[in-house]
Amino acid sequence: MEKVLIYDTTLRDGTQGEGISLSVEDKLKIALRLDQFGVHYIEGGWPGSNPKDMEFFQKVKELPLKTAKITAFGSTRRQGISADQDENLQKLLESGVSVVAIFGKTWDFQVTHALNSTLEENLSMIYDSVKFLKSHGLEVIFDAEHFFDGYKANSTYALETLKKAEEGGADWIVLCDTNGGTLPHEIGEIVAVVKQKLTTPIGVHCHNDSECAVANSIAAVREGARQVQGTMNGYGERCGNANLISIIPNLQLKLGYSCVREEQISLLTSLSRYVHEIANVAPPNNQPFTGMSAFAHKGGMHVSAILKSPETYEHMAPERVGNQRRVLVSELSGQSNLLYKAQELNMDLDKSNPVNKRILQKLKKMEHEGYQYEGAEASFELLVREELGEVKEFFTLESFKILVETEDSAVNTMAIVKLRVFDEVVHAAAEGNGPVNAFDNALRKALESFYPEIREMHLSDYKVRVLDEGGATAAKVRVLVESSNGKEQWNTVGVSTNIIEASWQSLFDSIRYFLLMKNELKVNAR
Amino acid sequence: MEKVLIYDTTLRDGTQGEGISLSVEDKLKIALRLDQFGVHYIEGGWPGSNPKDMEFFQKVKELPLKTAKITAFGSTRRQGISADQDENLQKLLESGVSVVAIFGKTWDFQVTHALNSTLEENLSMIYDSVKFLKSHGLEVIFDAEHFFDGYKANSTYALETLKKAEEGGADWIVLCDTNGGTLPHEIGEIVAVVKQKLTTPIGVHCHNDSECAVANSIAAVREGARQVQGTMNGYGERCGNANLISIIPNLQLKLGYSCVREEQISLLTSLSRYVHEIANVAPPNNQPFTGMSAFAHKGGMHVSAILKSPETYEHMAPERVGNQRRVLVSELSGQSNLLYKAQELNMDLDKSNPVNKRILQKLKKMEHEGYQYEGAEASFELLVREELGEVKEFFTLESFKILVETEDSAVNTMAIVKLRVFDEVVHAAAEGNGPVNAFDNALRKALESFYPEIREMHLSDYKVRVLDEGGATAAKVRVLVESSNGKEQWNTVGVSTNIIEASWQSLFDSIRYFLLMKNELKVNAR
Repeated sequence: MEKVLIYDTTLRDGTQGEGISLSVEDKLKIALRLDQFGVHYIEGGWPGSNPKDMEFFQKVKELPLKTAKITAFGSTRRQGISADQDENLQKLLESGVSVVAIFGKTWDFQVTHALNSTLEENLSMIYDSVKFLKSHGLEVIFDAEHFFDGYKANSTYALETLKKAEEGGADWIVLCDTNGGTLPHEIGEIVAVVKQKLTTPIGVHCHNDSECAVANSIAAVREGARQVQGTMNGYGERCGNANLISIIPNLQLKLGYSCVREEQISLLTSLSRYVHEIANVAPPNNQPFTGMSAFAHKGGMHVSAILKSPETYEHMAPERVGNQRRVLVSELSGQSNLLYKAQELNMDLDKSNPVNKRILQKLKKMEHEGYQYEGAEASFELLVREELGEVKEFFTLESFKILVETEDSAVNTMAIVKLRVFDEVVHAAAEGNGPVNAFDNALRKALESFYPEIREMHLSDYKVRVLDEGGATAAKVRVLVESSNGKEQWNTVGVSTNIIEASWQSLFDSIRYFLLMKNELKVNAR
Repeated sequence: MEKVLIYDTTLRDGTQGEGISLSVEDKLKIALRLDQFGVHYIEGGWPGSNPKDMEFFQKVKELPLKTAKITAFGSTRRQGISADQDENLQKLLESGVSVVAIFGKTWDFQVTHALNSTLEENLSMIYDSVKFLKSHGLEVIFDAEHFFDGYKANSTYALETLKKAEEGGADWIVLCDTNGGTLPHEIGEIVAVVKQKLTTPIGVHCHNDSECAVANSIAAVREGARQVQGTMNGYGERCGNANLISIIPNLQLKLGYSCVREEQISLLTSLSRYVHEIANVAPPNNQPFTGMSAFAHKGGMHVSAILKSPETYEHMAPERVGNQRRVLVSELSGQSNLLYKAQELNMDLDKSNPVNKRILQKLKKMEHEGYQYEGAEASFELLVREELGEVKEFFTLESFKILVETEDSAVNTMAIVKLRVFDEVVHAAAEGNGPVNAFDNALRKALESFYPEIREMHLSDYKVRVLDEGGATAAKVRVLVESSNGKEQWNTVGVSTNIIEASWQSLFDSIRYFLLMKNELKVNAR
């Protein structure tokens, strides 16, 4: 099996997408998951253009990465100066990575019109910059910006720029369809030509403006490209970058190339949804391979055929990419999913236990109401263990009151809770930065004397999503809370038309899960 | 220019998509727009499987269609009966259309496993059904279901099924990638073979399970297919059908085929958004060609290049498909972004006006605090107009109080606001489904007697994002509010550690923007 290396630029080019913005913490989380999935390169940012990115390059060194090489992005040197005077190239060195990707112009029109430079100077800029970075012992990837448009405009010059990168010692030459306007047959033809002219390994970097980025990337690989650049879920400027989530299974499961290890590809669905969750993007149901509807069958005729042989209406088995078949009109979906999931969480569910049916019904009811357990596995585990009678009542909420009010120009928030713990009634009041923070503070205050270990845990993330848009502030919201005790993290969910009620549910689950974990059962945090 | 006929099946296959459901009225509205756009065939439904569809076929006769032929969908006859005994074929005749599309099996495995029939009988079913419909004077399109999978499994048999349709007199033979698993190079190769075997015109019908449906349709056309079946915005079962909204501009503007008239293609964006609206689907910003972000530029370097020559970072002029260029205002923006943006919003900003510097500083300060204007252009416009002294004080908030508390097992929410309007002090109180909803209700109540037009506007979407994660519920949140008056939409933003305060800011901007729009200035909603 021929190897194709996967170069992920979610953390850099992906964040150019409208509405996508990732904190340094977000980026680190995603990097960890990308590495677990088996991606070969993770482009972390552009240290020369964005000071925030430097922080990522510092912190990422502490992550225990297994496969992925962290890459920093930059450009060829500015015109009229030498490479070692160029601040942007210096910043690449300072970032401390072992791999850098620099882009340079290959389209004559861009050189003269966007860069206001000469064709000759541009060639030197490419050569000098690659050579400079190579002389510092780095692996250098040359991103040939606008290469396909450049080739169509002036193939001689476009090829010359690649030659300069090769002469400079580039380890990879990556052909970019920067504007996303090229079609697959053109990509194929042009890559085939380039393949004959270069000895350096070739990669490809596509954008989705023609809705062909996946096909374009595949066309390039079929003509010899051995590195594919893209992003998770196709995030990126305008219409997005090539979607690695679709490219990888196409290459590996359909065309027999090797991208990640066999067992890693079944992480595809959870990876895709995890990144959506971190980026706070609602996962499109119809996303190929990993969407909720990707293997969902609606029509009666299709369903009955599927039940006989899934391959009648499925292009591949959903399990291969970690997704699930769903039969939308039938109650048949579930038991096997449930058993599969329980096993994953180290819970012993007997196949013939009648409780399974009750759990399934509960699950369906909750999902119908808008709960989603994909990103809230602690809540899922609580649901299952509750039905199994394994969750004791640590405390109950008798009532609460939250008051947000202005005082002079400040906004004050106060929460009062009344809990019942071991037959004792406890009151506590606390202030906070907002209603949920105040609520959380009051809960902890009330519980601390009974469960001092609660001091070990804290909320580490809080996300809100409106479920039925159009209803606006009267709509249902889903709150996802992530908690941590410094070592482990777990996620919980709440749903309500009232954001405070939804927050309470997820706070309640978070605390219960932690106490269960501490006191009762050896369970894995999730 | 070679003609490629467009066959739209939004009204039939599109409605198989999860969450897509269209009333008869919806279908009629969409049919009218499809005809205006220049589509050649509109598949209205499956009269034999869905009695509701019959109503559409009755009513559509009254529409003044210019180009499009209305098509009814069905299947080949059932096994063991003659064509004229088949109820489903009878229903096709009863629907009163002049064009029918019937699908038949071409994959041997499907015939024996899904249909439980024999290969021989299936050939007769195809031949008989086509011949029967032709004998009634109809134009007959044969949809060769699973053709590409069938061809890969047993090419001889698959081709034989097509031959039977041809012998029966089919006007078109449409090769279907029903499961959506085929890749472009396979489509191209197989269509080329079929083209040599048949004299009947060929069409193609793709699904997007491999994220290649657009590329697959193009590959088929390049090998001789002259009809493309697909749906608006790619709606359809699982991952959807081939997206005609992307296929048409690719074929017509990039490859020189003729699909619709030159002036019609500039209706593409409004058509795409209209169908999203009727189907009640939130238009994906990153949708190729027609999305809000399809021609949006974020990076400062890209922006300055775009200002010199748009083709530097655009694969085509947005106006050709009826879309617009947008420059996103973000951290990276400089004076050029600001001027461009202001111009876009019909604001007169003089390049040399010293106020620009102040606006930019304010913008940077706000963005540093977490405001983001790329999804909140109304707030951006207010910021600029405020600096220009163009925003009058419609009202001010003196104070508010929000109370969320449990009563029995319910959660009650109440908001009290004190506003100053025209030197009058107004109090109002209102309940709501949550604190923000209650706040919004109270604000409206207080303002209604001063600004009765406020009844025209409503909140249409509400989004919350935690900015600095790790701080969790004490972290800063950004609230984005989308408002609408039924015709126009505008977006506003608020940032605070307190979600109530952030919500207030975006509500405040939303109301101010609306009042400004109504009372003061001719501004475009955004």
